Amino acid sequence: MKKPLIFITNDDGVNALGFRTLVEAAGRIGRVIAIAPETTQSGKAHAITMYSPLYLRQVRKEGDVEVYACSGTPVDCVKMAFDHLLADNYPDISLSGINHGSNSAISVIYSGTMGAAIEASFYGRPAIGLSLADEHSNADFTAAAIVAEKIVRDVLGKVDELPLCLNVNVPAVPYEDIKGIRLCRQNRGHWKESFVCRQDPRGVDYFWLTGEFFNSEPNSEDTDEWALAHNYVSVVPIQTDLTNYGQLESLSGIIG
Amino acid sequence: MKKPLIFITNDDGVNALGFRTLVEAAGRIGRVIAIAPETTQSGKAHAITMYSPLYLRQVRKEGDVEVYACSGTPVDCVKMAFDHLLADNYPDISLSGINHGSNSAISVIYSGTMGAAIEASFYGRPAIGLSLADEHSNADFTAAAIVAEKIVRDVLGKVDELPLCLNVNVPAVPYEDIKGIRLCRQNRGHWKESFVCRQDPRGVDYFWLTGEFFNSEPNSEDTDEWALAHNYVSVVPIQTDLTNYGQLESLSGIIG
Repeated sequence: MKKPLIFITNDDGVNALGFRTLVEAAGRIGRVIAIAPETTQSGKAHAITMYSPLYLRQVRKEGDVEVYACSGTPVDCVKMAFDHLLADNYPDISLSGINHGSNSAISVIYSGTMGAAIEASFYGRPAIGLSLADEHSNADFTAAAIVAEKIVRDVLGKVDELPLCLNVNVPAVPYEDIKGIRLCRQNRGHWKESFVCRQDPRGVDYFWLTGEFFNSEPNSEDTDEWALAHNYVSVVPIQTDLTNYGQLESLSGIIG
Repeated sequence: MKKPLIFITNDDGVNALGFRTLVEAAGRIGRVIAIAPETTQSGKAHAITMYSPLYLRQVRKEGDVEVYACSGTPVDCVKMAFDHLLADNYPDISLSGINHGSNSAISVIYSGTMGAAIEASFYGRPAIGLSLADEHSNADFTAAAIVAEKIVRDVLGKVDELPLCLNVNVPAVPYEDIKGIRLCRQNRGHWKESFVCRQDPRGVDYFWLTGEFFNSEPNSEDTDEWALAHNYVSVVPIQTDLTNYGQLESLSGIIG
């Protein structure tokens, strides 16, 4: 059987440990072509670069693994793959991550990792965003790599339903403490910020954004937050129709 | 009756004509406090600024209108409003736009205009993203301003259902040619890019991203794309649960 072609990107940048870990894990499954951002792109969501051009450079090529760096956002990296580098040879699956820090609940819409996974799924092949609930640059990705490899093999071998986009979050515990993998829905809640205000050397105020997540339903056992908090891997299948169908009818006669 | 407090932001930047038009239209309804990005932030989606601080400066204050510029993204502007400038006095409604260019269909997830509107809705007050289907910097916003004023008054006076977030797109035709306002669902389809490759003065390739929208259902009369193409204003109520509930069951036993 022909080795699958696996595309990889991330939002922590081409040098991140989580990315290098994922490239290595994917290399055990198939051929790998990766395009990661040159620098950290955390929190870049689904952003694309419209007002500056993009650069692409090859970082390394060894055996069946090719790694490139792109000057843009995670979504730019995906477009650069599907509409340029791999335009004539779409990958069998796309992976994004492994992110340093979880992307559960509403974080999915701020996350560059998930922005890239969602974008890749638009091209008609499965895409998986992978995140570890540990934001440190030297986090231990051992368990996450095992989980990633298992889920990628499951999707490649068994899933026919497309489009497929998965948001996978792995708790920050040793592999033997992970209780299993749970299919979940996105937890409700929102981020609220506290701005830290300081003065620059010229005496002008500047602000650092520092958020805190408010969980609207901490006891709902079918959510990704609950799964992570109880040492399960959470897997949320993702769709991108933002229509609030419930309100379509109730707004009729009020708007318009 | 006390004048409502209206918060305004956008993604084309504080000097954009569509933004100035919206500030003026909103000023006819209530008090206005606006924070717009210093520079264009088109395509910035739901991006937040994590690795640099933010600056905020007052641009002008005249009567009941205050305008600020922020060095960050549209979502940063919203957070700066709700978690700093207006933290003790939430606005009654938030508006984002009027964008130069439509944000119908899947463009909602790339759009800085809609990123800001969605973020504002998280704070429990209604939020409306407004876009005109004309991307030129000198577009004629006359009709869009009338539509904006009407919808804002409708929402302020009559809508109790929260959270409320609306994606409003106005066709680029004179007001008398607009056939009405339609509640719609988000059109299915995706963007595909063609990269324009050039060489910089040092002989290195660089790429410009230039997308084209592929409409998967051009004849569906209940979509925002159809409404716009037929000279209706489209209004899509927005929600942010990305869970693909249809796949939750079908993936059971395959993943995990």
